[in-house]
Amino acid sequence: MAGLLAPGSHRAAGVVDDGALVAAMLEVEVAWLRALGWVGAVDDGDADRLEEVVARLDVDLADLTEQAEAAGNPVVPLVRLLRDAVGDDLLARRVHRGLTSQDVLDSALMLLCCHALGRVLDDLDSTVAALADLAAEHRDDVMPGRTLTQYAVPVTFGLKAAQWLIGVVDASEGAARARRDLPVQCGGAAGTMALTAELTDSPLAAAEAFAGELGLTWPALPWHTRRRPITAVADLLVGVCDALGVIATDVALLGRPEIGEVREGAAPGRGGSSTMPHKQNPVLSVLIRNAALQAPLLAAQLHTAAAQAVDERPDGAWHSEWPALRRLLEVTVVAASQSAELLAGLQVDTGAMRAHAEAAHDQLLAERGDTTGAVADYLGVAGRLVDTALARIGRKENEGA
Amino acid sequence: MAGLLAPGSHRAAGVVDDGALVAAMLEVEVAWLRALGWVGAVDDGDADRLEEVVARLDVDLADLTEQAEAAGNPVVPLVRLLRDAVGDDLLARRVHRGLTSQDVLDSALMLLCCHALGRVLDDLDSTVAALADLAAEHRDDVMPGRTLTQYAVPVTFGLKAAQWLIGVVDASEGAARARRDLPVQCGGAAGTMALTAELTDSPLAAAEAFAGELGLTWPALPWHTRRRPITAVADLLVGVCDALGVIATDVALLGRPEIGEVREGAAPGRGGSSTMPHKQNPVLSVLIRNAALQAPLLAAQLHTAAAQAVDERPDGAWHSEWPALRRLLEVTVVAASQSAELLAGLQVDTGAMRAHAEAAHDQLLAERGDTTGAVADYLGVAGRLVDTALARIGRKENEGA
Amino acid sequence: MAGLLAPGSHRAAGVVDDGALVAAMLEVEVAWLRALGWVGAVDDGDADRLEEVVARLDVDLADLTEQAEAAGNPVVPLVRLLRDAVGDDLLARRVHRGLTSQDVLDSALMLLCCHALGRVLDDLDSTVAALADLAAEHRDDVMPGRTLTQYAVPVTFGLKAAQWLIGVVDASEGAARARRDLPVQCGGAAGTMALTAELTDSPLAAAEAFAGELGLTWPALPWHTRRRPITAVADLLVGVCDALGVIATDVALLGRPEIGEVREGAAPGRGGSSTMPHKQNPVLSVLIRNAALQAPLLAAQLHTAAAQAVDERPDGAWHSEWPALRRLLEVTVVAASQSAELLAGLQVDTGAMRAHAEAAHDQLLAERGDTTGAVADYLGVAGRLVDTALARIGRKENEGA
Amino acid sequence: MAGLLAPGSHRAAGVVDDGALVAAMLEVEVAWLRALGWVGAVDDGDADRLEEVVARLDVDLADLTEQAEAAGNPVVPLVRLLRDAVGDDLLARRVHRGLTSQDVLDSALMLLCCHALGRVLDDLDSTVAALADLAAEHRDDVMPGRTLTQYAVPVTFGLKAAQWLIGVVDASEGAARARRDLPVQCGGAAGTMALTAELTDSPLAAAEAFAGELGLTWPALPWHTRRRPITAVADLLVGVCDALGVIATDVALLGRPEIGEVREGAAPGRGGSSTMPHKQNPVLSVLIRNAALQAPLLAAQLHTAAAQAVDERPDGAWHSEWPALRRLLEVTVVAASQSAELLAGLQVDTGAMRAHAEAAHDQLLAERGDTTGAVADYLGVAGRLVDTALARIGRKENEGA
Repeated sequence: MAGLLAPGSHRAAGVVDDGALVAAMLEVEVAWLRALGWVGAVDDGDADRLEEVVARLDVDLADLTEQAEAAGNPVVPLVRLLRDAVGDDLLARRVHRGLTSQDVLDSALMLLCCHALGRVLDDLDSTVAALADLAAEHRDDVMPGRTLTQYAVPVTFGLKAAQWLIGVVDASEGAARARRDLPVQCGGAAGTMALTAELTDSPLAAAEAFAGELGLTWPALPWHTRRRPITAVADLLVGVCDALGVIATDVALLGRPEIGEVREGAAPGRGGSSTMPHKQNPVLSVLIRNAALQAPLLAAQLHTAAAQAVDERPDGAWHSEWPALRRLLEVTVVAASQSAELLAGLQVDTGAMRAHAEAAHDQLLAERGDTTGAVADYLGVAGRLVDTALARIGRKENEGA
Repeated sequence: MAGLLAPGSHRAAGVVDDGALVAAMLEVEVAWLRALGWVGAVDDGDADRLEEVVARLDVDLADLTEQAEAAGNPVVPLVRLLRDAVGDDLLARRVHRGLTSQDVLDSALMLLCCHALGRVLDDLDSTVAALADLAAEHRDDVMPGRTLTQYAVPVTFGLKAAQWLIGVVDASEGAARARRDLPVQCGGAAGTMALTAELTDSPLAAAEAFAGELGLTWPALPWHTRRRPITAVADLLVGVCDALGVIATDVALLGRPEIGEVREGAAPGRGGSSTMPHKQNPVLSVLIRNAALQAPLLAAQLHTAAAQAVDERPDGAWHSEWPALRRLLEVTVVAASQSAELLAGLQVDTGAMRAHAEAAHDQLLAERGDTTGAVADYLGVAGRLVDTALARIGRKENEGA
Repeated sequence: MAGLLAPGSHRAAGVVDDGALVAAMLEVEVAWLRALGWVGAVDDGDADRLEEVVARLDVDLADLTEQAEAAGNPVVPLVRLLRDAVGDDLLARRVHRGLTSQDVLDSALMLLCCHALGRVLDDLDSTVAALADLAAEHRDDVMPGRTLTQYAVPVTFGLKAAQWLIGVVDASEGAARARRDLPVQCGGAAGTMALTAELTDSPLAAAEAFAGELGLTWPALPWHTRRRPITAVADLLVGVCDALGVIATDVALLGRPEIGEVREGAAPGRGGSSTMPHKQNPVLSVLIRNAALQAPLLAAQLHTAAAQAVDERPDGAWHSEWPALRRLLEVTVVAASQSAELLAGLQVDTGAMRAHAEAAHDQLLAERGDTTGAVADYLGVAGRLVDTALARIGRKENEGA
Repeated sequence: MAGLLAPGSHRAAGVVDDGALVAAMLEVEVAWLRALGWVGAVDDGDADRLEEVVARLDVDLADLTEQAEAAGNPVVPLVRLLRDAVGDDLLARRVHRGLTSQDVLDSALMLLCCHALGRVLDDLDSTVAALADLAAEHRDDVMPGRTLTQYAVPVTFGLKAAQWLIGVVDASEGAARARRDLPVQCGGAAGTMALTAELTDSPLAAAEAFAGELGLTWPALPWHTRRRPITAVADLLVGVCDALGVIATDVALLGRPEIGEVREGAAPGRGGSSTMPHKQNPVLSVLIRNAALQAPLLAAQLHTAAAQAVDERPDGAWHSEWPALRRLLEVTVVAASQSAELLAGLQVDTGAMRAHAEAAHDQLLAERGDTTGAVADYLGVAGRLVDTALARIGRKENEGA
């Protein structure tokens, strides 16, 4: 967790932190024993017994972090801790048997992705709903179109909201797809399931059961060195941040005092300054923009690692994925939550929009070559595009165009 | 074109260079006039007449580049050049009417993407075929599995090739999807099609016809500030480079003189040194690795831009996309071509693999807890995973497992 | 050269393109022969004879690019071409003897850096002069201070210009230092100068003479795998773009129609639109911003490569430096030139600044807790900071504070 | 702190975490009151009284994190907490008076940089000492030179160590310079020190005293929007990671079982696998490599932010610096510590080196054109370069060359 230096990070509390990671790794170990039980490789009650041990297990995160260095990952000391806690030699030996560290950590990270994406999707749903309301309500509210910072031709705030909307809908569909496709990792020491094949005649059935138990998919082959499951999630998370970043940048800009066409909703204590009592900073927009500035490089980190996944399991590239993936998940969970709040409370000043548009009447109609009409008469298909956007999410059109 | 500093860039000659870009922009202008013709907004023969002008048009690229700065993009001077060449005031005024620079440049870049992705897909098909042959031929050829640089358990070269194969197949499917979805850009000055709506009652029909004429899709709304069509292509291109980068890194590593398990195919003059006559450098692998190191940051550039696409058309972010997108296309076209050649010619020394595996017999079997057997007896589901991978591309399994 | 997709790139014509690179590589080969002559390892006239050959040499860049792939770099085919052109077996054998490809290419790239940095420094000098004029002229011109997009306390435009100024001065000093430190590369096949040591008892003297001949420094050891000379240049180039990017972003923002406190100088044809006759886009600001968005990732590319410079000469990381370094040089040369022009012509509307400040009187004085005074009375040390900034570049203070 | 997903992060415990940050922010507030005391703007005892309050202050980090969002930064709630704890209205009002949040947070981050760089420098000193020992001891131990993965000409391990050494020395000198230059931030709400100028006639003297109290420099002007102090640290941190990354990559490579020329020192539990008892993974090298893969993109994040520092204080760019800077500091502190340990314990197998060199005798001498001699006779200036490197750090040459 980025803590104090990532304002808003409490919104992601418990989603991707070390506690959540340990819980996920332990869930993976139990699920594996259960899968082995289903193919008859261990006793039926083993998984239940391990689950009880896990439920009582007290993990000292600082201590585990320290121990994680010796093996280069947190799985090795956690498995040691778990085996010690089992207190039964036979069961202790069965714990983790057939898996490699990467199977556990990759699968646990997929569980964290699943949880985080679920949170993101919920907040995007709220964001979509708020955007649809804005698009519908302001379908015909004229404002100046601005390109390369200067006045262009008239647009409507409804069209702007519709564009934001489609951006979020596309990102949300991508995130939903990514969530559905999250694969379990299961290959053993070098991706052959060799040890598991010693325990059962049906190692692949065990892998499938393992996936099912965790609510993940079985990808047919292990992916220790094919990191697309990681980069696919990353691409979609950064896509979410891109879409939200555009909105936040627009809001911050249109909320400048000289423009004043929109304003973040007020909340007690929100936007205050340490020195200036009147200040009402657009904090949510600023923080969402900040997220959008970070996400692309976190995803690039994951692609850089992906291209260097050598041998049967790589020598550093894999390790460099972990903090980047976690941070990208955290950034997106927080930004999605902040965006839902931002859009739900957004104040729109249609009067200011109209005033700006009318003051710039001649410029906004210059393209037309005839500046005698009203700016609202030169809106082209703006209304129909709003309707199209609303139809995309199943909303009925407000009116024809 | 990166030219001398991007060895292999001649493989992408004509795909994304300035000549190709100008041709694409001109194609876009003709297509638009044709689309306007279909909805009755211009005369039927206008597009044909413009096409003839275009066919005769002689564009001085250096001169056009210089003129591109004043407007901040190359469309404005190209349209001026085109109108001057038309020699008929009425037609000249109709050229480009209804479009904005971004409509033309974005659509032209989509055409370049289409062409480049086509080239990439062809080369990935060859790569897939070569990899499938390698996986099938070496399905049971044992070699040491290596994790974190050290010996782990035995694997087969067939399994390694199968993993490479699935990586490329996934990337190829992504690239094919991206190619199918490439959208036309059509919104006019600020995304409302206002001027087009003055010319015709059916502006959206014109947009659809425009897309059809260019072989692109109509995305329902313009995307001047929703840059997902750009980032979607970028994500898939970098995915291709990731998959190829892993192969190249593995080949460069396994081809080290102390390992010697694979070797790039010989070609006259290939791999030579300026000073050492014996040298046989793995040039293709080195160059593909080099591509994979570059691609993630080029894609990050595009996401960074996407998140800052403010107003109705942005103030610098859009411009920063162009060289990154072009370079990413070039890098991927070249790497895909080099990969097809690399895999078609790859020399595999199964004797060296087997010798290494047997020399490391005790280590490779340590996990099993019983080192009396042969390394080839501890391969788990390696063979079945190869068969699964081959089945994915419709190849029959060589044999059961 | 990024050409049409990098408007303004004609400003960097001839600085870093393939022609300049070939000329630099040939200069390096001649300098080496001259250095060998000085230590008596070749005949005195050899370098002169080679220089004459070089002067007559006709290099087909497209052909050379194509040949560059076989060796993985352009030096090998260029040396072959050069040797063929010499037409004297003895001299031909002496050409390039003792060097490796990386010696030639790295040294040639340092020459391009030297030239490009010279251009950048000249333009930064002009920028500094223009900024100093702005700071001095507007030392006491009040405007609203804006933080997190909202009004804070009053500032002066002079202080804003002084901050821009110090940013550019710092960047310029860095670039000057980088230019002074550019090292020659000279190590032979694996950094031991083994072959040169066969030709002369004074190989290190030859290396020093080589550096002197090229106007570069001799860094005491070759740096085939220590890439700090590359990353040091990159860090300073991106520092230049950062400083210019802040100015451009501020100008683009303050030039929005609703703010209108500054405006880019008019130039014939500058800032026009393909469709809207009234448009006066802030093209230089937009293009400089665009450069600042690109530079950080190009530098990151170079650091990513630097950290992977394995063995005695690396296997792909080195190659990935070339296009990134060239593009970063081009981007910075162009942005520095555009910035000099932007600042020389910047229009400042002090009336608008004052009007905004007075309209926001109560907000701007809220921190003070007493809003009875004038905004111009709450400027703290703004004037003295301007004086300090001007003193930094040797300008006398306009007046006390 | 990246915790479990950054093995080794316990090495940076307390250096850059939230506790350290809060302590630094409180130190800044006390120092400011002391500085105000020195110029007579507050009572002499005020700073001491605040220091006592700070000493007793109990900060709930989770609670503070949650409150940090409303203001967009952690300073606002911390100041509120501090003022509440003071229990004296007059003193409470004096706390933080004249500063803005960014003054406190930027200065506190500089303190963290100072501490972290101190740790890094200590570990680099150890690393340098170990590398110098390796260079001296193995000055004449021959091994194959490898370029583009293949055998080139002979080198010595001493030369390789000398190159590593110079890389670290350069990076260390850069880090020392960065540490010496760390500036205080002091400008008030919009960089004019307006409120401080109400409290004292000597606001700039207060700023200087503030810097002195914190052991930082006074940079003559505030740098709210000139972010070079941040990017300068970042550039040097990534330079450190680059230099260490090269070493780690070389060690991981040369420690592959087929090469076996070096090996990480053994430590209890180090390098073990969760499944394979024989495994001795080069964990330190892997983790250092992993750091070097992350650092460039973290620095790029900071440059991307720097170029967008608009207005008098920016709208998101500043915020995006915080997690990246913290993570970059953490990554470098950890990697430097791991590197010191790696080099102190590195096992060198000169027999394997010699054996490889002799087995490749003909290839390694091919450049010479005469393969009758010994590989050790074709080492050029390798020994003298080692001596030069050792002289750089004041070590006497072992012997002439």
